[in-house]
Amino acid sequence: MKLASFSYGNTESFGIFTDGGVIDLKKRLDNKYEDLKSFIEKSGAEGINISTDQIDYTLEQISFLPVIPNPKKIVCVGLNYHAHIDEVGVQKAEFPIIFLRVPNSQIGHQNDLILPKESFRFDYEGEIAVIIGKSGRRIKQEEALDYVAGYSCYNDGSIRDWQLRTQQWGPGKNFDGTGAFGPWMVTKDEIKDGEVLTLETRLNGEVMQRSSTDKLIFSIPELIAFISTFTTLNPGDVIVTGTPGGVGDKRNPQIYLKDGDKVEVEVSKIGTLSNKVKAE
Amino acid sequence: MKLASFSYGNTESFGIFTDGGVIDLKKRLDNKYEDLKSFIEKSGAEGINISTDQIDYTLEQISFLPVIPNPKKIVCVGLNYHAHIDEVGVQKAEFPIIFLRVPNSQIGHQNDLILPKESFRFDYEGEIAVIIGKSGRRIKQEEALDYVAGYSCYNDGSIRDWQLRTQQWGPGKNFDGTGAFGPWMVTKDEIKDGEVLTLETRLNGEVMQRSSTDKLIFSIPELIAFISTFTTLNPGDVIVTGTPGGVGDKRNPQIYLKDGDKVEVEVSKIGTLSNKVKAE
Repeated sequence: MKLASFSYGNTESFGIFTDGGVIDLKKRLDNKYEDLKSFIEKSGAEGINISTDQIDYTLEQISFLPVIPNPKKIVCVGLNYHAHIDEVGVQKAEFPIIFLRVPNSQIGHQNDLILPKESFRFDYEGEIAVIIGKSGRRIKQEEALDYVAGYSCYNDGSIRDWQLRTQQWGPGKNFDGTGAFGPWMVTKDEIKDGEVLTLETRLNGEVMQRSSTDKLIFSIPELIAFISTFTTLNPGDVIVTGTPGGVGDKRNPQIYLKDGDKVEVEVSKIGTLSNKVKAE
Repeated sequence: MKLASFSYGNTESFGIFTDGGVIDLKKRLDNKYEDLKSFIEKSGAEGINISTDQIDYTLEQISFLPVIPNPKKIVCVGLNYHAHIDEVGVQKAEFPIIFLRVPNSQIGHQNDLILPKESFRFDYEGEIAVIIGKSGRRIKQEEALDYVAGYSCYNDGSIRDWQLRTQQWGPGKNFDGTGAFGPWMVTKDEIKDGEVLTLETRLNGEVMQRSSTDKLIFSIPELIAFISTFTTLNPGDVIVTGTPGGVGDKRNPQIYLKDGDKVEVEVSKIGTLSNKVKAE
């Protein structure tokens, strides 16, 4: 099942996305759930009984929001593929490198990534996002996938000069409108535990990054176990698992996103997150 | 005016704190505002017409929550006093060093700071917190204080080994229950723009840190201007402005928080945030 948040006119909602269109779950379930986060928390992401024969809207009638527009936390993992470590020129860390994004740095599928006027060094980072389904602390690695509601595509867009000019990456990872999250999450029942997902990032149709989850240094269960050691994971929390090699900033010559560029992040069994870049 | 979030029995609320006790604003305003964040956003932190002659609860009847239990973001500033830079042994950065905390790392006044079982290197960091009152992006330094709702005390408690074992501080700054925020915020009308606030951290009554806002490397208006360059600041957002010299980890011998310790962070014109340490 594909679940996403969206706006229809002035109303924010969430629902099921099918080939034919959108089922508005908030409306169909009589506003019982305020948003997708609340739906995941209170209903589980599975087990609802809704007829999907009739759609409520076509895809053209809605605008995508970030899959979870209001997560309590967005935990990002740095330098989690060998090819990216090699291009950055650092050693593999003994522990996952963790930083955070804030919700208003995010946009949804088909919305514009914003190149801010403060920098030209806007870079893509295609990644796989994990959406947490139930609360847990100190989760065992063997049980970690029980805490997953689903998976999505993420573009952890980075303003490189603002990321790297002090030792902490916060500012460069948190410009408004630089992180894309979508189009939807695919619920965990459709992806077997341990199934290898491939990840590809394209810039104006050209493949820039290509890898798969078997090449993650810290696997998704390891990340969930590590992160939940220090913080309670809650429904709707997002873990962004790291980007493979091929970022624009480490290419020769360097490539940065400019007005009108199209960035796509495709993950197998999930779909393609597509956004154009708009310069301020 | 002193505003704080609290729980009374099983109910979470917010209100005005006076010498005599607590005025329950959520109740008095007929649940018009869900929480203190919403109250700040929708009413402004001033300008309500409530009689404070009669209290609703004594201080003993309530339990303090973090002043804002659910901020959209908690933006922390690292190494923002010369004495702390000197003891850490680094150079002054050209830009503020920014990292983030997540809401569930926070506790309220008089609640226990949690020494997690994973580490013994739990350190205090007394700081001054700024609570944002209205939304803004690219706020000019000269206008920055117009965006402030009030000020509070903060203990940016840190698990030093988890903070420093990779290049990003996230894990060590985000253990559940390690950040204390309170007791209340004092609204901005009670503190003149540019007025110097003193900050003192005590461990079991002994002064460990002592400084004042005129010694901040990046002033509060400079921080608001810098942070709002990359992210829209929203009502209820919290900026934690950095700790002065005297942290336990840099003392000789080193001092770490242990079960039963009492940590107090006192800021002039605001009050004293007091928490005991509980080892898991």
